[in-house]
Amino acid sequence: MDEGELAQRCRDTMYEADAAVRSLDIAVEVSGPGRAEARMVIRPEMLNGHDVCHGGYLFMLADTAFAYACNACNEVTFAAGAAIEFLRPAKAGDRILAIATERHRGGRTGTYDVTLTNQEGADVALFRGRSYSTRAPLVWQK
Amino acid sequence: MDEGELAQRCRDTMYEADAAVRSLDIAVEVSGPGRAEARMVIRPEMLNGHDVCHGGYLFMLADTAFAYACNACNEVTFAAGAAIEFLRPAKAGDRILAIATERHRGGRTGTYDVTLTNQEGADVALFRGRSYSTRAPLVWQK
Amino acid sequence: MDEGELAQRCRDTMYEADAAVRSLDIAVEVSGPGRAEARMVIRPEMLNGHDVCHGGYLFMLADTAFAYACNACNEVTFAAGAAIEFLRPAKAGDRILAIATERHRGGRTGTYDVTLTNQEGADVALFRGRSYSTRAPLVWQK
Amino acid sequence: MDEGELAQRCRDTMYEADAAVRSLDIAVEVSGPGRAEARMVIRPEMLNGHDVCHGGYLFMLADTAFAYACNACNEVTFAAGAAIEFLRPAKAGDRILAIATERHRGGRTGTYDVTLTNQEGADVALFRGRSYSTRAPLVWQK
Repeated sequence: MDEGELAQRCRDTMYEADAAVRSLDIAVEVSGPGRAEARMVIRPEMLNGHDVCHGGYLFMLADTAFAYACNACNEVTFAAGAAIEFLRPAKAGDRILAIATERHRGGRTGTYDVTLTNQEGADVALFRGRSYSTRAPLVWQK
Repeated sequence: MDEGELAQRCRDTMYEADAAVRSLDIAVEVSGPGRAEARMVIRPEMLNGHDVCHGGYLFMLADTAFAYACNACNEVTFAAGAAIEFLRPAKAGDRILAIATERHRGGRTGTYDVTLTNQEGADVALFRGRSYSTRAPLVWQK
Repeated sequence: MDEGELAQRCRDTMYEADAAVRSLDIAVEVSGPGRAEARMVIRPEMLNGHDVCHGGYLFMLADTAFAYACNACNEVTFAAGAAIEFLRPAKAGDRILAIATERHRGGRTGTYDVTLTNQEGADVALFRGRSYSTRAPLVWQK
Repeated sequence: MDEGELAQRCRDTMYEADAAVRSLDIAVEVSGPGRAEARMVIRPEMLNGHDVCHGGYLFMLADTAFAYACNACNEVTFAAGAAIEFLRPAKAGDRILAIATERHRGGRTGTYDVTLTNQEGADVALFRGRSYSTRAPLVWQK
């Protein structure tokens, strides 16, 4: 199995079991080890008391892209922490795209950047996540 | 109206319109300006592909406590950004408590710390949020 | 005065008065509004008790590139906060380059990314800074 | 050797070799495992082009308190990253105190909070650091 196929298998295995992401209709693609995209449409029930998307849902989308990016090398990997900058509000119906890229991986830890943009291509949020690998395999390779 | 009553009015006005928080059955209490608590029970549909609570939902709970804390002074205030450290996984059925306290407020900006604990009192996550005030009133005072 | 000349004037005005940066022999170039580079050689007196460069000096170099980048639009601008990830140790004699780029600017606030690399081109640290503008001019334009 | 004596031995061993901290006349005390204080007086050569203390020196003081706190358990431990919020400027002659406390330690990683205050007791900056332990001993115990 090559690197790209393995990344795809990791994505499929996680997505199958990922109740949180599936219940929000988040679409996830892994384009290779360390790279993933996630897409979500802002629903009315995601709006907060100021009538814009709750920051928690933007974080969730970014965190999802990050999780699939850092698990794509077939090591069960968790988020150790993350920071997010909210640049623009998102509104009901907005289509938000999160693109995650690996900035560094060494030993058990990694750093990933995620950029969130809306349907007009404007930046909505910047996210930086830190991962910690258990080194357990995510899928079995024959 | 005293400070405590005003904080309560701000909470009620936001909560009434807060579809995101209500749809997740997050309970919110504001104990005064700059202080709020939020409670959430982890549901099966909040679990990710590793069978633990998606970090996005923990962030959401922390962000909610933060939002109610920083809006309790009757200025419409948004999250500019936040950072979270994930210390322990949360599982289905866990009852998570988020306590937000103001660490600093000056000019239009503020810094708030939120600690998340589970039903056993163990720390689940640490969150630090940064707020930006529009200075528009949230509720009308007579 | 065009944008590039103005950015250069801002850099010169700040650098002239910048005791901290000059005392550490940090070289600073501003290539335009929102972009700056800073260079520093790690001295023996910058090493900590583990015999590697104190993280504070790496932060200082990153923060310097950030400061010159966000002041290059002729508004006196301060750092509101920053986060840094330390990826590789730096040693005595290492030549560290910090490149700052603007990721967002809106209203009084901005977000800047800085990457630190060593003389071999390997990443040493990643920094993300948040700025707050006073809107006062830094230099006078005729 | 009890925990407190061991913490003291770790501090002495690091401080002896800590050129960065000694050259800035930073005083460091370790009050036990996971707790340290660092003190620094702002010198004229620490001022930046806006005539206030360069944020890098405030970070350095916070990072120092953090480093001594997380090395006090006799495991060689490095900073993996940190975030700082700048709340108030510091000026020449200000006496800044940094107090570091452990918020969490588990496996190889830890989270530490540092608060910086000036001689009037006002908060100057808030810092949160993340540590990574090599598990090598820092000092030999007989």
